[in-house]
Amino acid sequence: MPYQNKPNGKDAKGKRNSSKRFITYRKAPNKKTPKPPTTQTVKESVRIAFLGGMNEIGKNMTIYEYGNDMFIVDCGIAFPDSDLPGVDVVIPDFTYVENNIKKIKGIIITHGHEDHIGAIAYLLKKVNIPIYATKLTIGLIKGKLEEHKLLSSAKLIEVKPRDSIKLGSFNVEMIHVNHSIPDAVGLAISCPAGTIIQTGDFKIDTTPVDGDMIDLSRFAEYGKKGVLALLSDSTNAERPGYTPSEKSVGESFELLFRKAKSKRIVVATFASNIHRVQQIIDVAQSRGRKVAVVGRSLENLVQVGEELGYLRVPQNIIISIDMIRNYPDDKLVIITTGSQGEPMSALTKIAFGEHRKVTLTPNDYVIISATPIPGNEKMVGNVVNELMKHGVEVIYEKMYDVHVSGHACQEELKLMMGLVKPKYFIPVHGEQKHLQKHSHLAESMGISKKNIFIGNIGNHIEISNRGIRSLGDVPSGEIYVDGIGVGDVGDIVLNDRKHLSRDGIIIVVATIDSKTGTVVSGPDIVSRGFVFVRQNEELMNSARDLACHVIDKNYDNNYRDWNTVKTKLRDEISKLMYEKTKRSPMVLPILMEI
Amino acid sequence: MPYQNKPNGKDAKGKRNSSKRFITYRKAPNKKTPKPPTTQTVKESVRIAFLGGMNEIGKNMTIYEYGNDMFIVDCGIAFPDSDLPGVDVVIPDFTYVENNIKKIKGIIITHGHEDHIGAIAYLLKKVNIPIYATKLTIGLIKGKLEEHKLLSSAKLIEVKPRDSIKLGSFNVEMIHVNHSIPDAVGLAISCPAGTIIQTGDFKIDTTPVDGDMIDLSRFAEYGKKGVLALLSDSTNAERPGYTPSEKSVGESFELLFRKAKSKRIVVATFASNIHRVQQIIDVAQSRGRKVAVVGRSLENLVQVGEELGYLRVPQNIIISIDMIRNYPDDKLVIITTGSQGEPMSALTKIAFGEHRKVTLTPNDYVIISATPIPGNEKMVGNVVNELMKHGVEVIYEKMYDVHVSGHACQEELKLMMGLVKPKYFIPVHGEQKHLQKHSHLAESMGISKKNIFIGNIGNHIEISNRGIRSLGDVPSGEIYVDGIGVGDVGDIVLNDRKHLSRDGIIIVVATIDSKTGTVVSGPDIVSRGFVFVRQNEELMNSARDLACHVIDKNYDNNYRDWNTVKTKLRDEISKLMYEKTKRSPMVLPILMEI
Repeated sequence: MPYQNKPNGKDAKGKRNSSKRFITYRKAPNKKTPKPPTTQTVKESVRIAFLGGMNEIGKNMTIYEYGNDMFIVDCGIAFPDSDLPGVDVVIPDFTYVENNIKKIKGIIITHGHEDHIGAIAYLLKKVNIPIYATKLTIGLIKGKLEEHKLLSSAKLIEVKPRDSIKLGSFNVEMIHVNHSIPDAVGLAISCPAGTIIQTGDFKIDTTPVDGDMIDLSRFAEYGKKGVLALLSDSTNAERPGYTPSEKSVGESFELLFRKAKSKRIVVATFASNIHRVQQIIDVAQSRGRKVAVVGRSLENLVQVGEELGYLRVPQNIIISIDMIRNYPDDKLVIITTGSQGEPMSALTKIAFGEHRKVTLTPNDYVIISATPIPGNEKMVGNVVNELMKHGVEVIYEKMYDVHVSGHACQEELKLMMGLVKPKYFIPVHGEQKHLQKHSHLAESMGISKKNIFIGNIGNHIEISNRGIRSLGDVPSGEIYVDGIGVGDVGDIVLNDRKHLSRDGIIIVVATIDSKTGTVVSGPDIVSRGFVFVRQNEELMNSARDLACHVIDKNYDNNYRDWNTVKTKLRDEISKLMYEKTKRSPMVLPILMEI
Repeated sequence: MPYQNKPNGKDAKGKRNSSKRFITYRKAPNKKTPKPPTTQTVKESVRIAFLGGMNEIGKNMTIYEYGNDMFIVDCGIAFPDSDLPGVDVVIPDFTYVENNIKKIKGIIITHGHEDHIGAIAYLLKKVNIPIYATKLTIGLIKGKLEEHKLLSSAKLIEVKPRDSIKLGSFNVEMIHVNHSIPDAVGLAISCPAGTIIQTGDFKIDTTPVDGDMIDLSRFAEYGKKGVLALLSDSTNAERPGYTPSEKSVGESFELLFRKAKSKRIVVATFASNIHRVQQIIDVAQSRGRKVAVVGRSLENLVQVGEELGYLRVPQNIIISIDMIRNYPDDKLVIITTGSQGEPMSALTKIAFGEHRKVTLTPNDYVIISATPIPGNEKMVGNVVNELMKHGVEVIYEKMYDVHVSGHACQEELKLMMGLVKPKYFIPVHGEQKHLQKHSHLAESMGISKKNIFIGNIGNHIEISNRGIRSLGDVPSGEIYVDGIGVGDVGDIVLNDRKHLSRDGIIIVVATIDSKTGTVVSGPDIVSRGFVFVRQNEELMNSARDLACHVIDKNYDNNYRDWNTVKTKLRDEISKLMYEKTKRSPMVLPILMEI
C-alpha cells in the first residue's frame, strides 16, 4: 500500500516552520527554536493542502504554496447524501484560506462544473481574491456570483489555454483538456521547486465535437522537461479501456432519431454538457425538427453557450416551449434537464404528469442521455417506470450508447502518466477506491509505491526531490449550507433531524405552580410523526397518566428539581412508548412555571 | 402498447357477478338483475387478483379464483424506500383476503426469499390458512413464525416438486426451478378453465450446484397439453443473453482464493444463498482453510441448511468466530452478511472498525459476492472505501465474476415462453420497465399484443379462452410496519417525519389565564433539528418577541379564539424563520390554559 498520510498533530508547528523558512524581510530568525532536520522545510519544496476532492467526489479545492505565496485551484460544492437531511449543498471549510488571507494570490478554476465552481461565491464572501478561468468558465461563474449579488465586486480574469498566470513565485500555464464541458483546462504549476501537473477533470477525445483535442503535446513537453508531481483525475480509475468519444453519442442520436420515425423526441441530459446539446441540435436540424428547451439550468446554458460562441445554433431552430403545440410531433425535439431523476427536474415533472407545458402521449420517444450517478439509480428507474406508464418508448443507458463519460478510463490515465513522467504521483478527484485503483495503475507504469501519495482532505504535504513529506493537517471538513445558513447546521442538528425522521416527536408539556409544585395545567401530550393520534388515543392517555404520575411523585418528594423531573419524564415516556410500539420517538418535556 | 388495466370503478359489481355465476346451491338467481353480456363472467374462466409484485419489486402476492374457490401464491414484504422514513417493512393490504376468508383454501409459497415469505406472519394473524411449501421454504417460514409466536398454531404442509395440491376446484403442481435459493418451485395451476403456469422466481441453470436442473421437461409437457396463461418472472427482462450458472462463481472463488495467497479471506454474500455458501465452504476445504460465519441471518441459514440437508458441511471445517484468533490468516475464511452495504450488517461494522470480533489488517482479502440492488450502490461503495482504508484488497462485482443473478435473462425468458406456449402472457415480478421489456420479448415470440396483460397491484382479471377481461380493482396497497405497529403509520405521519427531517421543529409554548387572556408563563421557544440554538439566540429571541406580540394582539381584540391564535402563531413564526434562514421548520404552537 502506498504511503498514507495520517494526522500527526504537528500541523501548527509544521505550518509555522514552513512559512518561516521563506520570510524575506527578516533574514535570520531571532528565536533559537530547535529545528530537527526531519521537520525542516527544504527550500526546494512546494507545499500542497487538500481542502476537498480527496476521498470524495465533490467540493474540489487544492492550495499550492511556495514560500509565502499561495494560490487556490477550484472551489466546488458536494451534493449532500441522504444522511444529511435538509442540507442543500456542502462546501469546503475555508478556515485555512482565512488564516492565510495575505498570502493568497488568487484562484484558478479548471472548468465550469458545480464541483469546481459551486462554492466560489461562499469563498468570495470571506476573501475577495482574483479568479482566473477560461471564457466559458467565467461565463458560468458570473451567473453564480450574480445570484449571490457578488458580481460587481468580483475580480474575474479571463485566460486562454497556453496562457500563463504569474502568482508570486508561481507560474501557472493553462493546458487544454477534453471533458464533458467545453473550455476545461489542466494546469502546469511551476515554481523554483519544480513543476506540478494537475490534470483537472479530463478525458482524451481524439474526435471531440468542437474539433479541439486535448493538448497532449504540451503535457508531453512538460514531461520531457521533467515534472515533479502529477495530480490526476481518478473518477474512472476503476474502468478499464478508453472512454468513447463524445461524437459516438451523436452517431447514436442519428440512429435513434431515425428510429423515432414520426414520434416527438424528448432528450434528457446534463445541463452543462454543451457538446451534447450541440449534437442534439445538429441532428434535429438534419431531420427537420425544431428544438425546445425546458429546465432553468439548461435554458441558461443554451443562452450562455450561444452568447459566448460555444454553441452553434442555426437560425430559427430553437422555439419557445410555449410554441410546441404549433408543431406536429415529428417536427419536434424537446431537450430537458432531469437525466438523474432529480425530483424537482423538468423530466421528473413531465414523467409524473406535473409539467405545465409538456404532456406525454404514446407518440413520445424519450432518450435519457446520461448514466445514473451512484445513489441516483433508483430515482432514474422510477422516472423510466413513470414514462413507460404513459406508453412512451424510453431509451436509457443500459440499452444504447446514448451517454459517454467525461472522465478518462484506465488506458487514458496511463497515457497521461506516460507523457508527463512525474517523479511523484498523487491521485485526486475520487473516493478511496478510485484513488487506490489509480495508484495501482501508476505502479503498473513503474512509479514506485513510495513515490505515490494517497491523501485525505486536510492533508498538508511538502514535495521536493527528496520526497513527499507530511506537514500534518490543516483545518478541513464539510460545511453544510441550509437555506441561507452556512455552517449553522452541525452534527447535533442533523442527529435530531434523523431521529425525528425515524420515529417523530412526543412533547410532554405541563404548567406548574412554582410555589406549590402543583400542576395547574396539563400535562398534555402532543406528537408529530409518531402515530396517527386519533387511532391511538389509549396510548396517548396512558402517556398522560404516566406523565402525571412522574410529576406528582416528584412533588411528593417535596424536592423540586425540574431538570430531574424532565429527565425522568423523558426516560419513562420513552420506555412506555418503546414497550407499546417498539419505536423510539424523541421525547421532549417542557415544564412551564408560573 | 399491450392492453393496460385501469380501475373502472366496477370492482364491487364485478366481484358480485363473478361469484354468483358459480353458486351451486342455488341453480337460478331469483333477482332479475340485468346482465349485459360484456360484464358477465363466463364459466370457463379463472380469476386472478394481484395484491403485490406488479409494478414493483417486492411483496409478491397473487390470488387465484375459480368459482367459490380461492388460493394465494406467496406473501412477501417489500423494503421501504428512503421516502418512507422509520418504516421497517412494507406488506400487502390483506383486505381482499379478509373479505373472502371462507373461500380461501390455502397459500402456496414458491421459495424462501423475504419478498415471498416475509409477510406470512402478518397474514396468519388475520387468517390462519394452510401453508404449502417445499422443505427448505417451510424451514425458513418456521423461523419467521417462531419470531411472531405463531408456529404452534400454523398449519404447515411440506410438498415436493411434482407433488400436486388439491385446493377446491384447483389442482396445483409444484415444478422445480433454479434460483438463488434451493427448493424453489414454479406452479402449474389447473382448473376447469384451463392451466396457468406461474414460474415463480427462476433462472435456467444447466449446471446447478446441487445438480438439480430446472424441470424444463415438465414445463414443456404442460406446454404440449395447452396452457391458458403464463405468469413469468420479469426481474431481468432488461438484460440480454443468459444468466451464468451459479457454478461459475465457484470457479471465480477458486481463482481468487489462490490469488489471496497467505491472506485471510472474507466473503460477503446474501444470507439466503445456500449454494453460494456451499461453494465457499467447498473451496475453503480444498485449500485447507477453516470457515467462520458472522451475521445472524447467515448463521441461521447455515444451521437450517445443514439440518435440512441443503448444505453439506465437512466435519470440523466450521469454527466459531471467537476461535479465529487461534488460526493463522492463511487458514481462515470468514463468511459475512452485508454484501449490500446495509448499515447494521456485519461487513459494514467490520469495515468501519466497529465489529467486536473481526478486526481488519492489510493481510485481509475481501470478496463482495453480490451486485448492489438499485438504490444500494452508494452504501456498497462506502463500505468498499472504508475497507480499502485499512489497506485491505477488495474484490467487488465490477472487476471479477463473483456474483451471478438468480433470475432469468432475456434468452431464458424466451425459452420458457417457447416451452410453455401460453395463449395469454402476463409479465409479473417487476417494475413497469421490466414488465414492458418482458412483454416486448413475448411479442417477439409471436404472442400478439392483445393477448398480453400488463397489470398493476389491485387489478382483478378474468381469463378465459375468449380473452382477458378486467373485473375492476380489489383493495390493495402498501401497509407500513413500524415497530409492532402495522398500518398505524400513514401519509400524515410520514409527511410529518419528512418535514421534521428537512428543517426540524419549533415549538412555541405559552400558558394563558383563560379568564383574563393574559400570558402567565412563556411564550417559550423550543427547537429541535432546526439550528444550533446557542449560536442563534438572537433569532430565538426575535421569535419569542413575535410570539408575545401575536398573542397580545389577540388579547387586545378581546376575542379569545385559541385556534386562530395558534394558526397566526404558526404563520407568523414560519414567515419570520423563512425570512431569516430560508428554511421552513414545522412550527407547533402549544397554548396551555389555567
